[in-house]
Amino acid sequence: MLVVKKFGGTSVADKDRIMNVARRCVADYKAGNDVVVVLSAMGKQTDVLIDMARSVNPNPPRRELDMLMTTGEQVSVAMMAMAMDSLGVPAVSLNAYQVAMHTTSVYGNARLKRIDTERIRNELDLKKIVIITGFQGVNKYDDYTTLGRGGSDTTAVALAAALHADKCEIYTDVEGVYTADPRIVPKARKLKEITYDEMLDLATLGAGVLHNRSVELAKKYGVKLVVRSSMSEAEGTVVKEVVKVERMLVSGVAADKNVTRVSVVGLEDRPGVAFRLFDALAKANINVDMILQSIGRDDTKDITFTIPRDMETDAINAIENIKDTLNMQDVKVNSHVAKVSIVGAGMMSNPGVAARMFECLYNANINIRMISTSEIRVTVLIDEKEVDKAMNVIHDMFGLED
Amino acid sequence: MLVVKKFGGTSVADKDRIMNVARRCVADYKAGNDVVVVLSAMGKQTDVLIDMARSVNPNPPRRELDMLMTTGEQVSVAMMAMAMDSLGVPAVSLNAYQVAMHTTSVYGNARLKRIDTERIRNELDLKKIVIITGFQGVNKYDDYTTLGRGGSDTTAVALAAALHADKCEIYTDVEGVYTADPRIVPKARKLKEITYDEMLDLATLGAGVLHNRSVELAKKYGVKLVVRSSMSEAEGTVVKEVVKVERMLVSGVAADKNVTRVSVVGLEDRPGVAFRLFDALAKANINVDMILQSIGRDDTKDITFTIPRDMETDAINAIENIKDTLNMQDVKVNSHVAKVSIVGAGMMSNPGVAARMFECLYNANINIRMISTSEIRVTVLIDEKEVDKAMNVIHDMFGLED
Repeated sequence: MLVVKKFGGTSVADKDRIMNVARRCVADYKAGNDVVVVLSAMGKQTDVLIDMARSVNPNPPRRELDMLMTTGEQVSVAMMAMAMDSLGVPAVSLNAYQVAMHTTSVYGNARLKRIDTERIRNELDLKKIVIITGFQGVNKYDDYTTLGRGGSDTTAVALAAALHADKCEIYTDVEGVYTADPRIVPKARKLKEITYDEMLDLATLGAGVLHNRSVELAKKYGVKLVVRSSMSEAEGTVVKEVVKVERMLVSGVAADKNVTRVSVVGLEDRPGVAFRLFDALAKANINVDMILQSIGRDDTKDITFTIPRDMETDAINAIENIKDTLNMQDVKVNSHVAKVSIVGAGMMSNPGVAARMFECLYNANINIRMISTSEIRVTVLIDEKEVDKAMNVIHDMFGLED
Repeated sequence: MLVVKKFGGTSVADKDRIMNVARRCVADYKAGNDVVVVLSAMGKQTDVLIDMARSVNPNPPRRELDMLMTTGEQVSVAMMAMAMDSLGVPAVSLNAYQVAMHTTSVYGNARLKRIDTERIRNELDLKKIVIITGFQGVNKYDDYTTLGRGGSDTTAVALAAALHADKCEIYTDVEGVYTADPRIVPKARKLKEITYDEMLDLATLGAGVLHNRSVELAKKYGVKLVVRSSMSEAEGTVVKEVVKVERMLVSGVAADKNVTRVSVVGLEDRPGVAFRLFDALAKANINVDMILQSIGRDDTKDITFTIPRDMETDAINAIENIKDTLNMQDVKVNSHVAKVSIVGAGMMSNPGVAARMFECLYNANINIRMISTSEIRVTVLIDEKEVDKAMNVIHDMFGLED
């Protein structure tokens, strides 16, 4: 069996944890498997490097920042290969260039285009454990790139797809995917299985276990994903296409506090206004999520939308730049909001799920400020301070603890 | 003018020093020069990485150690490019793979084979300062290698040769090449010029300013070398083929304390014994320097030689391994010795220089234990504790302070 195993920065934060991961991988290898390991930078090394960069340049060029950051994973993989060697097992570390891991050219947020598997195959044929830098790639200029948030998950899934691996295990600091964040909802329960689409919505909505790009990729190439803990032997959660047990109505509740609501008030009510607004935001690389348009007074209209909170400044700047062409009256910003979502493949064939969610929020006296839905998801925007209460009442309402 | 400028780890040890180096290079750039910068890892980072490696594996595989170590220079060059960007000058950092810097396959001690200059030329044509990782290369397996001691100097000289640079400036923590180490010989004087051969002997003999491989390379390709300080604007020492002033009899005195004397006592006096001994040492990669063979008692002979002190353990092990075939009586080791040498192109045409050196050592009551000479050099092995005295009396004898 060919297994791709991905470990995040926390799992390789120091020499003891590196030895722990090495032993786990060696056990898999000794059981007769081909093992490919994908690693992030050790601990908080990525943050350390960013701070170093800012010490000489408050606004470092993206290309050079990627050149700097990619050293982080290279340190991890070399250390891991040495750790495995000390356990008597042959291992080889490879960085993005050695693999080669081809990406688009955008520094800091590149996308994987193509992975050469020849070198990896050769090393596996030599009965080595192959350890590969996550998060990084090389673009057409032979420059290093990084994949952006959750990039190491994406590297692992892409490698699993390219190598036709039997499974891709994502090791994290929790034991799997839960019906809700156990720190917020004490009754939260670990799921044995979940579909790609459910996982995708949970990932997008801030469940935080897996990045949505990696789940998208897993779905596209049918990579069997397993989310499990690097600290325990517990079985984890399998993410795959068809979940054989009867589909639950709702499989999880997720919250995302990285949200700001922006209202552009008093826009002229004529064609092209919304286009110009969202085009400006798109050009500034801002992901707009929920959108609500309402008629204002005096032939004007208001447009309200949500964005990631860490893009707030960029968004305000982007709107300021087109202020004159837009002819608006005011921009209102509320950073004290959060999204709470329920996700479940069972919703498709069961109407009334959204209504039950709204009902329990009403009973808990929680005000809903915006609503957005998809086939397998209902999301509401509420006050940030009510998130914990909301998640618990929803978790209870849909009986997720059973 | 195309200038290659090399800065060692001390010169880029922290953000202030990085900014200092950036400003110096930018000044050169703004004066209209094409500037290529070669950097070592920041401060003691190489040692930090080696310690990290040993924490998971007391004897880390060389390939993985190089994979780890090469991150050191990559951090330096990325930081430097950001620093130059903050000064408003376009700069680009390149590592060994991006250049590409082809080496032999020996990890930890590779030799440069070929440097592709296309990428560098392109970046220079785009009016960028090009910043390149010293000390590292890539071998035919697409693996990172390191060049061994003084590797960054070698990188700089090789780049200067490949790019037909007008000069190669080696920045260090001293202002140039001195007639002797000023910490030991207070009267030591900075040389304005020196020939490659003199520099080569001084480098080999432990003057420490430049590594001999880099000087050899500079001589072979006629690269004009300048040794100068990164902390001051002083002019430094020019190393080149022909020094136009009348050649001094002796241009410098150098000491090397990284020496151990090994005596293999009571070897059988038959052919092949010396071969077998030095063959074993060569295979263990030990550089044997001075060699003395003497007849012992009872048809036996003794062989005495010097090796770098840091190779002592390896040497003893290598000799132990062939103990039985060698049939020797004893191995004696003395680590409290040092080499003191005088170097000067003028010696070739002036006999009696060695005799004057021996005379002044005799007058100072310093015992000479071994002697070795070349056309432009005389080396003696003496007790380590007499080095400082020896250097001063020799410096006086040849009137080097003038």
